[in-house]
This record gives sequence, structure tokens and C-alpha cells, in this order.
Amino acid sequence: MNFIIQNALVATNDNYTTQDIQIVDKNISVSFASQLETPETVVNGENKLLLPGFINAHTHSSEMWQRGIMSMFPLELWLAELYDFAPLTTEEVYLSALGTAVETLLSGGTTVVDHLVLIPGKELETIATAVRAYKEVGIRAFIAPLIQDESIAAGIPAGDTQQTYEPYFRSTQQTLDIIEDAVKQFHNSDAGINIVVAPTGIQLCSDALFQGCAELSNKYNLCRHSHLLETKAQEKLALEKYGCTAVEHLQRIGYLDYRTSLAHCVHLNDADIEILAETKSTVVHNPLSNLRLGSGIAPVIKYRQAGVNVSFGCDGASSNDSQDLLEAIKIGSILHNVTDLDYQHWITPRDSVKMAALGGAIGLNIGDVLGSLDVGKKADLVLYDLTSLSLLPRTDPIGLLVLGRPTNIVNSAWVDGKQVVADGKVTTIDVDNLRQELFQRSHWQSQRKSKTAKELESHYRAVMGI
Amino acid sequence: MNFIIQNALVATNDNYTTQDIQIVDKNISVSFASQLETPETVVNGENKLLLPGFINAHTHSSEMWQRGIMSMFPLELWLAELYDFAPLTTEEVYLSALGTAVETLLSGGTTVVDHLVLIPGKELETIATAVRAYKEVGIRAFIAPLIQDESIAAGIPAGDTQQTYEPYFRSTQQTLDIIEDAVKQFHNSDAGINIVVAPTGIQLCSDALFQGCAELSNKYNLCRHSHLLETKAQEKLALEKYGCTAVEHLQRIGYLDYRTSLAHCVHLNDADIEILAETKSTVVHNPLSNLRLGSGIAPVIKYRQAGVNVSFGCDGASSNDSQDLLEAIKIGSILHNVTDLDYQHWITPRDSVKMAALGGAIGLNIGDVLGSLDVGKKADLVLYDLTSLSLLPRTDPIGLLVLGRPTNIVNSAWVDGKQVVADGKVTTIDVDNLRQELFQRSHWQSQRKSKTAKELESHYRAVMGI
Repeated sequence: MNFIIQNALVATNDNYTTQDIQIVDKNISVSFASQLETPETVVNGENKLLLPGFINAHTHSSEMWQRGIMSMFPLELWLAELYDFAPLTTEEVYLSALGTAVETLLSGGTTVVDHLVLIPGKELETIATAVRAYKEVGIRAFIAPLIQDESIAAGIPAGDTQQTYEPYFRSTQQTLDIIEDAVKQFHNSDAGINIVVAPTGIQLCSDALFQGCAELSNKYNLCRHSHLLETKAQEKLALEKYGCTAVEHLQRIGYLDYRTSLAHCVHLNDADIEILAETKSTVVHNPLSNLRLGSGIAPVIKYRQAGVNVSFGCDGASSNDSQDLLEAIKIGSILHNVTDLDYQHWITPRDSVKMAALGGAIGLNIGDVLGSLDVGKKADLVLYDLTSLSLLPRTDPIGLLVLGRPTNIVNSAWVDGKQVVADGKVTTIDVDNLRQELFQRSHWQSQRKSKTAKELESHYRAVMGI
Repeated sequence: MNFIIQNALVATNDNYTTQDIQIVDKNISVSFASQLETPETVVNGENKLLLPGFINAHTHSSEMWQRGIMSMFPLELWLAELYDFAPLTTEEVYLSALGTAVETLLSGGTTVVDHLVLIPGKELETIATAVRAYKEVGIRAFIAPLIQDESIAAGIPAGDTQQTYEPYFRSTQQTLDIIEDAVKQFHNSDAGINIVVAPTGIQLCSDALFQGCAELSNKYNLCRHSHLLETKAQEKLALEKYGCTAVEHLQRIGYLDYRTSLAHCVHLNDADIEILAETKSTVVHNPLSNLRLGSGIAPVIKYRQAGVNVSFGCDGASSNDSQDLLEAIKIGSILHNVTDLDYQHWITPRDSVKMAALGGAIGLNIGDVLGSLDVGKKADLVLYDLTSLSLLPRTDPIGLLVLGRPTNIVNSAWVDGKQVVADGKVTTIDVDNLRQELFQRSHWQSQRKSKTAKELESHYRAVMGI
């Protein structure tokens, strides 16, 4: 569809201008009124801010089923509780993928990276379900099936104890075969569906799994994803496991390159940061999850100073409890002001927008075609209504958007030139029906008791010195 | 008005129950269906959560005029920029007070503490304007006229330099006279309007001002408010000024008691914390402002462990850029998980609700009549719609409310038994008209240059060792 957005506010280098933008053949075409051809559709951009779509660069969609209910636990015990109550039907996976996509779109995101938890025994079906949901909503999706080949208890450092673990229920090769099957069946960048290789992290994965994933990435030119050094426990575990930091080890086994995005990166030292910069790896910052789980504050100002690309993620709704990308961007920007006295290093709202859009795109190896309003780039666009009370009085539109708490402000959104939000509503699926489905398949509850968390707790406390 | 809320979800000790609540003569009456008399009005509470109204325990309403536009500065330079561009008409004060009240109500707050910036020469007029706005909206208001008797440059430590400052334009006694006039004209707790004595803080106030305020507080039984040790610079300044900590000094001059609430409290040592506990002073936690200005993370877990009462505030919209109380509660709760490895100390969503409601009430010396759903307490109530996509699927209602990012979820709110929000809309004023007024009186802008900030900057950097 060819269309034109008229009179939208667009950021210039250090100010704003009112401009017409034309989209032809899914791409941003020309942006000067005098050159415009007759468009099929005209969108009124008056009192609206046009920005490139943001990228929700790390989430786990099916965690939506446990938002609001998870105990106040650090990651290692939280994960045990999460898996004790994980959803087990593809219908649930479908609904939470729809929900995640809708919340992402309505908070400025046009791309989602779903580090997708697989239902044991129904791995390909789980992936197929997420593909279906994202296609229906029309969001650009990077589906990163979450894989591991070690059992959950292996994720806690042994400390002075001798620990033995059950073997994981599926072999490394079987897991890699599932991923290759998924690539063959579903990977189709042009259609907006991408499969990503995504071992969960060093805490639960063998070198063989990482290396098998790197080979698949090379063979099919896939993005690579992983959690990295989210917690202090993982930092300790890496030293136990490898005798060096996790970053040094991942570099050694060839997992880090320009297609690699790494969620969290809270506990890296300066040498690690240098390695990320050298390998052109991307840090995905998930500030709310890192606070909720007490993981720490990622050294994002240092990453930026070292030239490491940084993007934002919501993380799953069990560790953040919202999928609002604007919230992650706000907190992920201002949080670092308490880590560096020199305000000249602080992230400005314009920096934040660039990280969320272009930073996200670079992390997915599509920075050349996405993430800014440049002519020739794909039309993944969001038009924000600036007349919401939460954005008034008028001052700096990007400052209001990033530093405020805007509500109901995404007026329109397009993915690959196709409109998916109009007049503040998602147009591709029936959101009221989705709400009813989510409501009917759930019930009010209060605190639960996780058997696995209880089993792991005393060892966890001992080894972490609590 | 007498009314009944039917079938609302209400929290029990560790679970939820569905209950009918009756309000008679502005108070929560009986809460067992069998005892109910015939009510005038019935409110449908189905699939809604009933909570006591929260208290936005620290804000500055007129800062709304500069939200989204303030430079990324620490407090001392930010304040210089703020005052260079402060609004100067009572009409602006009126509109931003309305806006602050509306945003507070729509995010669960039924009481606002407005540390109100006074227009020089129009002090009583400014206060009268805020009184008018809050009465119109029907929110419970504690108006705390922001006063000082030293000029802005005095708020930065001298370090090794010799600093001299212009005297403040108004004498200490004139200022105290204004406050006493305001008390006589406007203080009327029964009508929901309270005047609070509120020197801005040790950085810009003499002992005479603090002591004069304490005398007024004793004479009229007024609450006392102040900023306290928001920044590292203020910590240094207190040592320069008093040779002891600010808390020790404020105790010595008699400012701290059970009616005293203190905004920020970021840089207190353990002995200071003991003094707050002994004097029964309240800490008002403003997490978003503390992050945005790089002030630091208040040691809230320590406060709770020491038995210090803690409540939440948004702070003004120039240092947080939103007046969403639920956002302040979420971030002000999870932020502390990164300061204490032991998750057993972390603030739970139920703790957060108690801090935001009862903690706020205690800080305003009305804990006996407000802040919980107990029979006989005033009916300051909020009914949350739990069918919003942002709160689905159903799990733990309070967990979803506190840890999620709920939008459009305040269905109804009552202040002193009077309904002020119905069907998600404020019923007492025309919010669309307010939006238009805010829109028309403002314009899109980009970064500004503050003359005063520039004058202070090199001294600030030198003395802070940046």
C-alpha cells in the first residue's frame, strides 16, 4: 500500500519540523512534499510525532501467564518457580504471543524478539504457534526458541559443595535438529518471521550447544541470542565452569559476532566490555527485570562509552510484569544517572529513541534497512498522538514520550508498510476477544509454593552468602 | 451520599474475598452483606479490586509546565534551569494543579501533597488558586507552600572557596506571616484542604525559618514537610553549615516529629535513620525523580527495618515527568532489590500498597482515619477494573496492579465518600477542556539554555569533583 503521512512532527538534528512522509512499496520513499506522487491513502499527522518503530529486543511471551504472581525471588529461585507453573498448551502460547505483540505495538514497538519457551515434546508446535500469532498481528518477529541441555539445578554455583545433576531430558543434537527444522519451516525474513538461535545462557548450556547454534547461524545467516551474566550467581558459575569470565569463554568458542544480541549483561568487567565492542555484539538492556529480580544495574553508560551497541527489552512478563516498551526505555535510561556523577554522560531522550529503534535493528543485523526514518528504509513506523493529557502541556515531544508515562498515545503503527494500529486500536486482530480469552482461561490467586524453589533455596543461600 | 459497592474483590490477610462495602455519612460503614441497610446507590464491583486511596505524598504541581523539557542535570543545576523558566501566572498554577490532581486520581491517588511553588509577590494568590483547583476536582489536598529564605546559589557547597550570596528577596518573618495568613484563610481539614508548613530544605533555609514553621505547626496542629538530603551535594552542605548531619541538626532545632514528612532522604547514615525512627518522622520516597536527577537510591529497606514510616511521591513533573502514582509505587518498590541480596527483605506488592495508602496517611497524621478499608475510616476509595489487557491473564490482583504497568484501570474513585471518578472518567471537572487549555498555552520546543545553570556549573563541577 502506498500512503502519505501529512504534517507529522519529525525530529531534526536538534529540533523538530513538520513534514509529509510518503511510503511506496513498503519503504519510506521521499519526504519532501513537492516530490510526492498521488498517494492512495492520506494519514493526518497533525499534532503527532512520527518515529521509527522500536524493537522489543528480549522477551518471553508465554511468561504472560504468570505475571503479577511470581514470588519476590532472585533469578535462580524465580526460574524454579516459573517452570513449576509453566503453561503447557499451545493455545496458551498462542494467546500470550498475541498479548505480547499487542502490548508491544501499543507502546511503540514494531518488532519483537521472543525468546520462546518451548513446551517439552511439542517444540516445533510451540514455534509454529508463535509464528501464527505474530503473522496474525502483523508485528515483525524474531522467534528465538529458548534451548538448553543442562538441568535447572546446574544453574546455581556449586561453591564448596559437590553437586551432581540429572541429565537434561533431550540431547544436544536433538535440540539442534529441532532448531534446524524450525529454520527450514519458518524462517522467512521477507515475510517478517525470523528464527534466531538462542541457547538460554552459559548457566544451562554446554559448549556443544553454543557451537552447534553458531554453525546453524553461519549456515543460514541467523541472528544469535542468549542471556548473559544476568546475576552475580552466573558470574560465579562461569568462573567455576570455565576458569575465566563467561564473555571470554563465549568469544573463545566463537559465539560472539555482529549478529549476536545478549540479554541483560549486568555483571561484566572492563575487559569483557572490550570483547563485546570488538566482536560487535549487542547488549539488550532489560532494566525492569533486572530490578525486580534484584540482578543489579547493567553498566550501560560504560557500554555506550566503549562503543557497544545497546538496545532495550521488556523481558518476559513474569520478571517485569508488563510488556510496555516505553516503560523499559524510560527506566533503562534514567536508571544509570545514579551510577555516574557526571551528568554529561547521562542518556538523553534522543539517545534513548536511537537505542530503542536503530540500536535494536543493529542488534538484529538489520540496521541497514530498519531503525530510522531514512529514505529507502522499511516502513516500520509509529505515529504518537501528542494531545494525551499525559503528554501535556506541550514541550519537547521526545522528552515527554521517553521521560513521561504516556498512556493511549500510539495512534497508528505500520510494519513493513502495512498498517497494524489505527486510531489507537490494533486493526489486525480482535483485542476484545483476546482479553476475554485471557480472562476466561485464568483465575484470581494469591501466593503459590514452588516445590523446586524450596529444594534449591538452602543451597542457593549458602553459596551466595545470604 | 450513602452507597454500596457490591461484589468487589478485597484483600484478606493473604488472599482475596468478594465482598459488599457500604459507605454511610462519608465513612466506611459495615462490610457484611447481611447487615446492610438500603443504600441510595449501588456500584457494581464485579471483577474490580477495591483498595484504600493512595497518597501522592510529594509533588510540585506547577512543574507540569516544564515536563519533558528539562536538561539532564543533577538537582542543583536542574533547579537553576527550573526557576529560569518557571510559570508566572496564577492561571498556569490553576491548570497544572488540576492536571496534577487528575493524573493522581487516575493512578490510584485520592490525596495529593503539593509542595507548591509560590509566584513571587503573589504568594497568597498562588495558594488560593491551588485551593480552588483541588476543591473543584474534589481530591484531598495538603498544600505545602514551598518557602525558603536564602538565594539559590547558597544550595551548592562552598568547598574550598569563599562564596557570598545575594540575600533572599523576602525576609524570614514576611514569609512566616504569609504562611500564617494562608492557614487562617484556607486550612480546613474537614473540607479536605490542609495547609502544611514546608521550608524547602536545609540547603536554602535558615534555622529561624524552620523554627518559625515548627511554631506554626504547634499553634495550629499543622503537618510539617521538607526536602531532606536529596543529593550528595546537600550532604556536603549540611556538614559545612552545621558541622553535623542535616538530620541531627533538624532534630536539634525541633523540626522532626510525628507530623513531619521528609521528601527524598537519599543520603542518610544509620544514626540519622535512628533519629527518624525515634521522632516518628516519615520518609517520602520519590524514586523516579531520584533516578532522573541522579540523586541516588534512598535506603528504603533500611528505613523499613528501622521502623521508619515510608510513603510514595511522584515529585514534580519536571523531575519525573509523569504524575502516575502507580509508576512511582512500582519503581519505588523493585528498585531496592538491587541494594540488598537477601530477597526476604524485598518489598512485596502488598507491602507497597500499605506504604502508599496507610504509610501516606500516617505521614500526614491521619493514619487513624484514612489509609485502610477498616470500618469507621473515611471513604477515600479506589475501584480498579481488572479486565484491562494490562492486568490479564488473571493472577494476583495486587501483584498485577503494583508490578505491571496498568493503564486505564481506575474505574471509580471516592474522596470523603464523594465520587470523583466514574467509568474511568473524572466527573468533577471537564478534562477535555483542561487538555485543550494546556495545549493552547504551550508550544513544541527543544532544548533551552539556562543562564543561571551556566553561571553555577563550573563551581558545581569543581566542588563535586567532576
